[in-house]
Amino acid sequence: MPHPDLTLPSLPRWEFPTDLDTPQVVVDVDRLDRNVAAMAGALAARGVALRPHAKTHKSVEVARRQLAAGAAGITVATVGEAEVFAAAGVDDLFVAYPVWAAGAKAERLRRLAGRVRRLRVGADSPEGARLLGAALAGTAAEVLVEVDSGGARTGVADPAAAAAVADAAAGAGLPVVGVFTHGGHSYAAPGAGAAAADGEVRALDAAARALAAAGHPVEVRSAGSTPTALLSARDGVTEERPGTYVFGDRQQVRLGAHPPEDVALVVVTTVVSVSGGRAVLDAGAKTLAKDLPATVEGYGLLPAYPAATITRLYDHHAVVEPGDGPLPRLGEVLAVVPNHVCPVVNLATELVAVSSGRTVGRWPVDARARSG
Amino acid sequence: MPHPDLTLPSLPRWEFPTDLDTPQVVVDVDRLDRNVAAMAGALAARGVALRPHAKTHKSVEVARRQLAAGAAGITVATVGEAEVFAAAGVDDLFVAYPVWAAGAKAERLRRLAGRVRRLRVGADSPEGARLLGAALAGTAAEVLVEVDSGGARTGVADPAAAAAVADAAAGAGLPVVGVFTHGGHSYAAPGAGAAAADGEVRALDAAARALAAAGHPVEVRSAGSTPTALLSARDGVTEERPGTYVFGDRQQVRLGAHPPEDVALVVVTTVVSVSGGRAVLDAGAKTLAKDLPATVEGYGLLPAYPAATITRLYDHHAVVEPGDGPLPRLGEVLAVVPNHVCPVVNLATELVAVSSGRTVGRWPVDARARSG
Repeated sequence: MPHPDLTLPSLPRWEFPTDLDTPQVVVDVDRLDRNVAAMAGALAARGVALRPHAKTHKSVEVARRQLAAGAAGITVATVGEAEVFAAAGVDDLFVAYPVWAAGAKAERLRRLAGRVRRLRVGADSPEGARLLGAALAGTAAEVLVEVDSGGARTGVADPAAAAAVADAAAGAGLPVVGVFTHGGHSYAAPGAGAAAADGEVRALDAAARALAAAGHPVEVRSAGSTPTALLSARDGVTEERPGTYVFGDRQQVRLGAHPPEDVALVVVTTVVSVSGGRAVLDAGAKTLAKDLPATVEGYGLLPAYPAATITRLYDHHAVVEPGDGPLPRLGEVLAVVPNHVCPVVNLATELVAVSSGRTVGRWPVDARARSG
Repeated sequence: MPHPDLTLPSLPRWEFPTDLDTPQVVVDVDRLDRNVAAMAGALAARGVALRPHAKTHKSVEVARRQLAAGAAGITVATVGEAEVFAAAGVDDLFVAYPVWAAGAKAERLRRLAGRVRRLRVGADSPEGARLLGAALAGTAAEVLVEVDSGGARTGVADPAAAAAVADAAAGAGLPVVGVFTHGGHSYAAPGAGAAAADGEVRALDAAARALAAAGHPVEVRSAGSTPTALLSARDGVTEERPGTYVFGDRQQVRLGAHPPEDVALVVVTTVVSVSGGRAVLDAGAKTLAKDLPATVEGYGLLPAYPAATITRLYDHHAVVEPGDGPLPRLGEVLAVVPNHVCPVVNLATELVAVSSGRTVGRWPVDARARSG
C-alpha cells in the first residue's frame, strides 16, 4: 500500500531561513494572508459572517489580520484566551464553550464583560446557564445555546433541551441571542464534511425554532469547523467559526478542506541522529503534539521526503522511517507539516513569520497555555 | 473485559482545594517529597549517583528539592532547559541528547558552558561530536557518547561506533568522560523493565570497554528511565537519570514502576456538560496531552470513577464514558491522573502545590516550552 501522502498532490517544498535555531514554528505570511482573504471572501459572498476561532493561532497579530479582512469578531475556547484578546483591544468575543462559571471563573468572566463591547458565552445546560446569569447579569454579555449536530461532544441533544437552557439563561437575567454548533464529525473522513454541514444547518434550524417558540428570538445561528465552514454557510446560518483554515495542516489537506499549496505553517527541525535505517528529528511530542487522526499515518508530513513516516514520537525525538524513499541526512534542516496545527501552536513561544524564505517577524503566541 | 484500571490497586481519591479555577495542574508536596527521598535513598544504598531528568517537572523548586535530597546534578533534554536551570543557579548539568551544535545553538551552548561548573553534552555521531568541539573546545564542557541499548531511538548501534564518536570529540578538543543510554523499551509492557535494564548495563559496559581500548578512560556510565532506574543501578553503572518518578503517572503505575498511593500530580478539571450518557471535562488535549500508551485505555484515569474511560480528547474537551460505573455529575470537580506526566507539565504555566488538600504554593513551570 502506498504511503497515504503519496496519494495526495505533492506539498511544495518549504523555503525557510537557514539560520533558524530548531525546532521552530514557521509561518509563511503570504500563504496565511491568502487563507485569511479566501475564507473572508467566500463567506462574504454568501452573506454569512466570519468569526474565526482564535484557538488555532492564539496570536494577536493573526487576529488583527482576520479582523482587517472583515471578520465580525473572534471566537475563543476559554476565558483565558478571551482575556488575552480583550487586553489587546479585540472587543467582540464569543467564548464558544459551555463555560462553568463557578468561583474564580465567574469573577473573571464578569471583569471580561466589563472591558469589551460584546461578549457572548455558550451554555448547554440550565445549571450552567444559571451560573452564567449569576456571574454576568447586568453586563452586556449574551448567551448562545450550544446544540449537538452529530459530533456527540457538548451541546444539547434536542430542540426542547435547547429551549430549556434558553429559559434558564433568560430567567437568570441574561439575554439569549442565538444557537451554535460545531460539526466536528466532519473530521471523520474525506467527504464527511457534507453530511456534517447538513447536520449543522438542521440542528441550528430546529433549535432556533424551538427558542423562538419559547419567546427567545434568535438572531445568531453560528456553525463552524474548517471542513464545514463553506458547506453550511446557507439556509439561515448567520455565522461561521472556522479556525484551522488560517494555517491548514496535514489533516485538513487529507480531508480536502485545505489547498496543499497554501499550508502556511510548518515546524522546522534538524536531523540530529541517523542510525539503523532511521533518522531522528529534534521536534518531538512537546513540539509536534501527538494528534494521530485516523486519516493519516505517522506524526507529521515531511514535504521533502513524502514516502517517509514519523513512526514514533517521544518528548524530544521524532523517529523517521524512510519507506520507499531516501533517508533524511544527518544535520539536514527539514520542514514538518503537523497533523493538527492547533496544539502545535500552543506548544510554541513564538511564530517565525517568513515571506519568500526570509524572516519578516516574530509573533508571540499571546494566548499560549490559556486553557482555562 | 474489565477496564484495565480495575485490575490495579485503587488510586486514592485526591484531596484538593475547592476554589481552584480549572483546569489546573496540582502537585501533592508530601507525595512528591516521598518520591524524591525514595529514589535518592535507593540509589545511595546502591552507591550509584542520581541525576534526575528535569524535563518531567521543568521546575526550579522541584530541582532544588532533588538536589537537597542528594542528587549529583540534573539532566535536561534541551539547551533551552539547561539555560533556565543554569540561570537559577543549578551548576551541574547534563544535556542527555545528541545536540546538533550548529548556528545559534552553538553560540548558546558556549555561553552556557561559561556559566556553570559542569556541562556535559551527548553525542552519537562523529559529525555531531565535531560540531560540539567547534562550539565548546576550550570550555569546561565534557562529552558523553550515547549508546542504543535496545530502544532503537538515538545512540550508536555498537561499541566500535561509540569509539569513533569519542575519537571525533577528543580530536575536536573535547574531553570524553563516559557513555550514556536510555532503556526506553522498558515502557513496552509491565515487566519489560528487567530486560531493558539488562540491556542498559550490557550496552554501557561494551561501549565503555571500547572507549577505554581507544584511549578514552570512562568515568561515567549513565543509564536511565523510571522503570529501569533501580534495576540497572549495578555492575559498573555509575549514574541513573529517572525523571517521571518525581510525580508518577498512570503509565508508571500500570508498569509497576510507581506506587499508586504516591502519584503526586493530577489535573483538576470540571464537568462542564453531561448529555447522551457521556460527561465532558474542561481538560482537553491542550491540558492532558494525547499520549496513549498501549498499556492503558483512554486519555487519563479518574480515581473517583475507576470504571470510566476518557474515550475522546479534543483541544478543550475530554469525553468521559462511564463504563459499568456511575457518570460524573455536571459541575463536579474531579482529579485526572494523566497517562504521561511530562507533556502535561509542559502545557501548564504553574503547578499548584498542595498539602493535605490545602494550597501551599504556586510553582512556575520555569522551563516550559524550552524545546530547543
